[in-house]
Formats: sequence, structure tokens, C-alpha cells
Amino acid sequence: MADFDESRVAGNGLLDRRLFLRGGLLSGVAVLSARASAVEREAWMRAPGAAMDEIGEPSPHEAHVRRMNIRSAPGTSGTGVSFTPHQYLDGIITPSRLHFERHHNGIPDIDPERHRLVIHGKVKQPLSFNLDALARYTTVSGIHFLECAGNSGASIAAEPVQAPCSAIHGLVSASEWGGVPLSVLLDEAGIEPDARWIVASGGDSPVMSRSVPLKKVMDDAIVALYQNGERLRPSNGYPMRLFLPGWEGNASVKWLHTIKVVDQPAMTKDETSKYTDLQKDGSAKMFTFPMGVKSVITSPSPGLDLGPAGIYQISGIAWTGKGRIRRVEVSADAGKSWADAALDEQVLSKCLTRFRAPWRWQGADSVIMSRATDEYGNVQPTRDAVMAARSAAMFYHYNGIQAWHVDAQGAVSNVYV
Amino acid sequence: MADFDESRVAGNGLLDRRLFLRGGLLSGVAVLSARASAVEREAWMRAPGAAMDEIGEPSPHEAHVRRMNIRSAPGTSGTGVSFTPHQYLDGIITPSRLHFERHHNGIPDIDPERHRLVIHGKVKQPLSFNLDALARYTTVSGIHFLECAGNSGASIAAEPVQAPCSAIHGLVSASEWGGVPLSVLLDEAGIEPDARWIVASGGDSPVMSRSVPLKKVMDDAIVALYQNGERLRPSNGYPMRLFLPGWEGNASVKWLHTIKVVDQPAMTKDETSKYTDLQKDGSAKMFTFPMGVKSVITSPSPGLDLGPAGIYQISGIAWTGKGRIRRVEVSADAGKSWADAALDEQVLSKCLTRFRAPWRWQGADSVIMSRATDEYGNVQPTRDAVMAARSAAMFYHYNGIQAWHVDAQGAVSNVYV
Repeated sequence: MADFDESRVAGNGLLDRRLFLRGGLLSGVAVLSARASAVEREAWMRAPGAAMDEIGEPSPHEAHVRRMNIRSAPGTSGTGVSFTPHQYLDGIITPSRLHFERHHNGIPDIDPERHRLVIHGKVKQPLSFNLDALARYTTVSGIHFLECAGNSGASIAAEPVQAPCSAIHGLVSASEWGGVPLSVLLDEAGIEPDARWIVASGGDSPVMSRSVPLKKVMDDAIVALYQNGERLRPSNGYPMRLFLPGWEGNASVKWLHTIKVVDQPAMTKDETSKYTDLQKDGSAKMFTFPMGVKSVITSPSPGLDLGPAGIYQISGIAWTGKGRIRRVEVSADAGKSWADAALDEQVLSKCLTRFRAPWRWQGADSVIMSRATDEYGNVQPTRDAVMAARSAAMFYHYNGIQAWHVDAQGAVSNVYV
Repeated sequence: MADFDESRVAGNGLLDRRLFLRGGLLSGVAVLSARASAVEREAWMRAPGAAMDEIGEPSPHEAHVRRMNIRSAPGTSGTGVSFTPHQYLDGIITPSRLHFERHHNGIPDIDPERHRLVIHGKVKQPLSFNLDALARYTTVSGIHFLECAGNSGASIAAEPVQAPCSAIHGLVSASEWGGVPLSVLLDEAGIEPDARWIVASGGDSPVMSRSVPLKKVMDDAIVALYQNGERLRPSNGYPMRLFLPGWEGNASVKWLHTIKVVDQPAMTKDETSKYTDLQKDGSAKMFTFPMGVKSVITSPSPGLDLGPAGIYQISGIAWTGKGRIRRVEVSADAGKSWADAALDEQVLSKCLTRFRAPWRWQGADSVIMSRATDEYGNVQPTRDAVMAARSAAMFYHYNGIQAWHVDAQGAVSNVYV
């Protein structure tokens, strides 16, 4: 283990990220005698396997990997949230079946043949598009995160919520989103000179509606038809949704049905009763769209307890609505010292970035944390800094540093430091 | 349409890729009166939608998007292939449920608790890893294609096969693959100085076995545990597979069970009876691992016929086992003239790259083609060049240019030019 000691880069056993971690040897690794027969023929090697199939399902041994902690308003089943189980995932792509949900009155069962996208308001010619017509326009695609403004809102509670990582931070997912630039469709309709905003409305029964500045729309908004290569799934807006890279998820209106071009925001129920940020002076900030720089350790995390003392990988996700993640640091001593984590070889813009750091856990009480920095030098703040800067009741856009406590038995829990 | 005429960049209506295509106006786009009510309240807007769910399934309206053209050897159900339906996909990610299959005796039903990865042969200490131990090592992940050596083999037929794009070119898919660098595990076992190859064997009943040079293994081979963020699916090697970025799929042994470190290739049945390339002089080339530079137009393609004359998007995928795609050109006049297609903003190494080009189809007989160039200047060859360079019976590693014929009615078929 001597080589590992030399590569300590921060307190309490954090090792150099450039180390490709060897276990030397981990439990679960058996040294065999040189003459051991390498092959043990299990039952599944002694008979033909299952047939090929039109759909490749996950293993039944992975049935616990599901959206978790589904919560709906009293008396409803579709007015709430479900969370991506990040503690069981690796990499950056979220499988579409596990993408988080936030619906306001359930998932509409839309007939794609009948669905229309209508563009009206301050345009030269109001237009109505069917799906086939939309699919003929030039498309673009990119891999981006989508985060609910309320993600991590549990972290404002006075006492740390004891729940899996997903139940606190699982309202963020990443997918490849593909579709037609909305700017192209607006050009087709002809925008009037005094237009400044659009109001995007969904084809769900509450007609979820958000005002979006025209500048963002012309920059990188798309009418998304595809998610991870295939058509959107109903719980993500089938047959089409607005997608605004880096902005709070609520504004990426699902089941997109109408776009009204306007000269000022509409002040819809969905941007006045919700998705506003209460300030200390009692006023409410509106239209705080971009998501802040943020990270969270997904493993170890509550429920993924450590085994015997020894080498572990600390792994997590980082992201910012502004662009690329430049750096993620990890601490194993409650923030007293920090070490750089390894990032993906190719860091994508407005996307989850996987970070990893090797850690030799000594079997003692420890607090592990991660801290992200974006390409503009913005640093993820501590929880104290976040809470000091806002009213106690402000819920959305929480991006403080998450600390996990590891006790001497390896049990992981949520902790404020 | 005048602006489109000015942007013609190649014969028969190919337009500048920098044009964000407007339809001006397409069929399926209706101009509404300025006083039209924008909102038509369909049935699904007048009642609460479906509940949130632990698994987000695709829309029943997309049930045709499945692996296609499943073929198995006579008397078997698991010795053959299934194809990714690229003609229905966009972007670069292949959903895991649609990843192509090539199995040699079905999908084993492996108990992850009992499965072991054994490393033996020319090593200082033979080792056996269980899944929990493997998952504690440092992991890496990247988005890469995987292509069966036999993909597009149908293109050597004397007459062009009339079948959907997927049935000819659907043995390639792209995923985010995550796992432990195999070099780390070999370091743990200690490689003997005279070791040059490994022999990787699967835990399936035919014990699929391939020899892989140690140089590739130490460069970028991983023991993959994750695909698109979640654990591998059984049809892609659950609970673990070898993954060799850019190399023929067969060598990325699924259900990886043993790694034997050796000084020369083992000449297994799977690399002598199959996966060799018959040369004109009757000899067979072996170990031709990297996949060549290649592209195919996925839309339009057979079965996705055109409607009325007008503007369409030509879209497809390009890839090379050597690194990045630098350029894709498209022709609409059977190769007489070519125009650059637009590529993804971020082109990934050893990965599918989506290309797109706007085309004004005049309603006349046309032949459309795509031609890829990699970052080293290697250009995808014509079918004639491929066929002239090899024996008529050579099946694997076909990477010739695919031409699709569009007749005056818009029907698309396979054609040799």
C-alpha cells in the first residue's frame, strides 16, 4: 500500500485522481492457486440461453433500479414528482425510463396524429404544425441535463433529511435531446418587431404555461421530438416538448401545444403561484431561469454503506446551466482540505459531468463533500452561504454543497457541516 | 423560396448545411387566421392524466420501434442477430432496449452474486473478482459505438437487397459504456514479462472466446458494468462484458467470465471458423479488429418514403473505429457532386456522429449517398472499390458507400451505383 500513501492529496485518505485505483486487494477478490481451474461451469453455462428479443429488458436482479419516492398531492396520482435513482447509476446518461418526473395533473394520453403545435400572437402568419411536418425540418441534438427548480429543496429543512441521495437530489437527469430549433419555426411564422417573449403552453389538462424571453428561444431552444435517440416518452412530453438547455425544468414545457409570441411575460399561474423565489424583504424574484453550479456525491451515499475499511471510489455528478464544469473538488475531512476529482475525458456543456476520486477510508468517522466550479469561475457555495443569502422560505434553486457523514461502521447519512 | 436557390451547394437540390431549413411551407403546416382560437381542447386536455410511475415506458404509438429482422440459425432461437431500427432514431445514443444483438447460443441467465471474473495465465497471482469487488475500483465511462464485424454484409450480395436500413446496417449501436479499466485489474494480478495477448471468454454456454493484443487492453479496454448509466442489460452482457472501443463487436466478449494472459493468440473456434477475412489468394486475414470509416443515410431510407416534392432533411450516422469523424459529404445525384453535411456540435471519438443536410427534392428520380472522412483523412470507399479489393466471399468489415434510390413517387429502395 506504500504507493498509495505517497499519492495522498488531501486529508483523511483522499488520493490522487490520476491514480487508477488498485485495491491491493479488496474483499471480494480471491487469490487463486496457480493451478486452479479457471472455469467453474455454472448452470447457465450448461444449457442454451434465452432467445433474442425485440425489446431488451433490464435484468430482474436490477429491479430495484426504478424511479423512487413518488409523491403526489393529496387525492391525486399525477400531481407531484418521481426521482431518478442516481445512487445506482454511473456515467452521465439517464436511461429514459428513469428520467425524473414533475407533473401538474398527470400524463396526458396524446394521439400524435391529432396533436398540433400552434404558433400565434405577434407573428405575421399564425401557423399550426402536425408531427409529420415538424419532423421534416432540420433537426439538431445535444446531450444536456434537465433539472427541476425544486431539486434539492429538501436541503433547506432545519434538520438534515435522512433519505437516499435520489430523494434529495434526484430531480435532475441527463439525456440526448433532439428536435427542431424553435427559432426556425418562429422565422417561418414571422416575428413582429415588438415581440420580446413567448408563452409556451402544454397540452396537459392544467395547460402548464411559462413565459420565456425571446433571446433564449432564438439562442438554443428546441421543440424536442427525440430523447436518447428515440421519440420522447409520454412522461417526458410525447409527442413534443419545449427544451431549454440549462434552464429550470418547468420552463421546458412538456406536451407542447401552443406558442404565443408576446411583448411581455404573461404572469401565468405557473410562474406566480410557483417557481418564484421569495427574498428576505418579502418580494419575490421571478424568471430566475438558469440553474446554478452544483454537484453531489452519488456513491457513497445514504443506503450505499461502506464495508470494511479500505479503498473506495467517491463518485458523483456535477453540472451548471451556464456551460461547462471546469473542476470538481472532493473533501473527506468535512471541508478542511480538498483534492481535485477526475472528470470525464470530454466535458459537455449544460450536461451532467461525472467525477471520481479514490479514497482510502480508515474506518473512522468521516464527512465527504464535493464542490463544483464552472468554466466562468463560479464556485458551488456552502449550505451556510446559500441559507444566509436567501429567505428561510425560499425553496427553489438550492445548490449548496452536500455533505455525507460516514460513521465508523460505514453507515452513510445526511449531515449539515 | 429564392433564398434556398441561392444556397444550392451541389446537384439535384442539395442545400447549404448552414441553412436552418424552413419549409416555406411544408404540407402539414396550416396557416391560421389571425383571429383563430389557438387552443383546441382535445379529450386529453379535459381530464387528469395518468399517474407518475416507477418506470417510464415508450408511447404505445411507438410500438413499431423495436429491434427488427430477428434471425436465428435453424432450430435455435438465440444463435443469430437482431437489428437496431436506425430509420426510426435520431441523434447518436441508442436506447439500451434497442441495442443490436449477436449471440452464439442465447442469453445466459446469470446470477450476479455467483458470477466471477477470473484472471489467470501469465500473471503473478491468479485472481477471482466478484461483482461487489469490481464495483469498488476506479471506473471510467465514454460514449462509443459498437459494431458487429458482419454489419452491412448484405451489401456484398450480387443484387441490392431490398430491406429496411436496419436490416442492412442495424448491427451498429452507440451507448455510454462505463466500467473498470482492464489494465488496472491486470496490474493487480501482475503481468508476466512475456505476456502479449489475452484470451477473453464469456460465461455463455458456447464460451465465446477471443484473443486480444495486450497493447489494446492496456490502452482503453474496460470491463463494462454500465450501459447508458444503468447496469448492462442481459442481452448486452449482464453483469459484465469486455468493451474495446472502435473494434469489431465480437471481440467485446459479453458475460465476461475469464481472462487468460498468454504469449500468443489462442486461435479459438470464434476467431478461426468465423471473424476472419478471406483474401483473393485463398488465405484468410485474422485479427482485423478496428472498424473502418463508414456512414449511412438513415432517413430517407427504404420504408420511409417521401411525400410530395419539396424540402426534406437527409439525416444519417457516421463512425470510425480509429477516432473522430471529420467530415461527411452527401450527394443527391448519384455521386456526381457532393455537399458537406452538418455534424453534431461536439463530435465524439469512436462514436456515432449524426449528420444532416437539407435537400429540395424536385419530385424526380434521384440517388442519394453519404461519404465519411475520418480525422486521419481516410475516406469511406465506394462499393466498387470495396468489392474490387477483396474476394467475393469476404463478408466482414464491409464499409462501402450506401446509395438509396428515390423514384418519382418518392419510394426509396436499395441500389448499387
